[in-house]
Amino acid sequence: MVTAVSQTRLDALIEALRRLPGVGVKSAQRMAFHLLQHDREGAEQLAEALGGALRAVHHCERCHTFTEAAICDICSDESRDARQLCVIESPADQAALERTGSYHGFYYVLMGRISPLDGIGISELGGLSMVQRALDGKVEEVILATSFTAEGEATAHVLAEGLKAQGVRVTRLARGVPAGSELEYVDLSTIAHAMVDRR
Amino acid sequence: MVTAVSQTRLDALIEALRRLPGVGVKSAQRMAFHLLQHDREGAEQLAEALGGALRAVHHCERCHTFTEAAICDICSDESRDARQLCVIESPADQAALERTGSYHGFYYVLMGRISPLDGIGISELGGLSMVQRALDGKVEEVILATSFTAEGEATAHVLAEGLKAQGVRVTRLARGVPAGSELEYVDLSTIAHAMVDRR
Repeated sequence: MVTAVSQTRLDALIEALRRLPGVGVKSAQRMAFHLLQHDREGAEQLAEALGGALRAVHHCERCHTFTEAAICDICSDESRDARQLCVIESPADQAALERTGSYHGFYYVLMGRISPLDGIGISELGGLSMVQRALDGKVEEVILATSFTAEGEATAHVLAEGLKAQGVRVTRLARGVPAGSELEYVDLSTIAHAMVDRR
Repeated sequence: MVTAVSQTRLDALIEALRRLPGVGVKSAQRMAFHLLQHDREGAEQLAEALGGALRAVHHCERCHTFTEAAICDICSDESRDARQLCVIESPADQAALERTGSYHGFYYVLMGRISPLDGIGISELGGLSMVQRALDGKVEEVILATSFTAEGEATAHVLAEGLKAQGVRVTRLARGVPAGSELEYVDLSTIAHAMVDRR
């Protein structure tokens, strides 16, 4: 029947959009209707961008971030300080660190964090290849810059254990009061940490 | 430079995802990383679904809803009551009405609503072809089932004016207290409407 097919194509699009993180059935419907009704050009662009990224984007052999080359931009930059390796969760975190201009070493991007509930342990994270990366003989300090959430802290803890056993110096980003904040609006756990780590 | 290209493919994907309604730069980033890292199959599926829908899905010649045939399922159903035409904003509204089982006439899907701020007037909505559809000689009653928001009400008002001038009977969905609600939690405007329309 012709219409059964029709239902299926639109439904297939809605179903595919639902696989995006944070998109439920209502949003997926709204997105599908919007694309088909108001932004067919955007839909084409998205289909092409998906295809292009799938074909070309893979992981950097050294730092595991997304790249189209074998070795990414930052890892091939010989002016960077090979003695420091900063471990982060995502390319977005890397971009944030780069924007600060406060760090000139190399990175290792975990592409996630330990999450026992989702079955993601240190080996799923490529934590072992991270440790190997840290032991290239040049790295003197590994800076753990995973999130300050329960999962990020657990990830940092596990990595720190593994690295310390290998005799590498391991540091963690400082915890404290964010710049520009008024103390009365800062959560108590942050203030407590800032008090302990005062200098 | 190789890496400049790499940046561009990932950025192109993030940019394309941002065109989805309700998706900002952070969500688009999260979606792109998720697809590339954890759900490449989902990304392929989405690219294919977009392509398939773009190629095959267009508007029904009679009711303007999405279909792959010239005339959609409902419009080709001869068992339906040709004397009633229900005007709604979207295929999702149509699906909701169909699920109630309380309506057996035909539909006209506006695919939007009047929104002066976005430059959408009655002609952009295909309101004129809607009026034509209503004047096929068989339609006796047009039921306006646009949303009960300011924009939906404006749309209903404009369509009602046009249709009444042609001598077609025009009705609107009843406004009132939703089933299952306790009066104290219903907003005052709804209660006021329910009081006026009491029966």
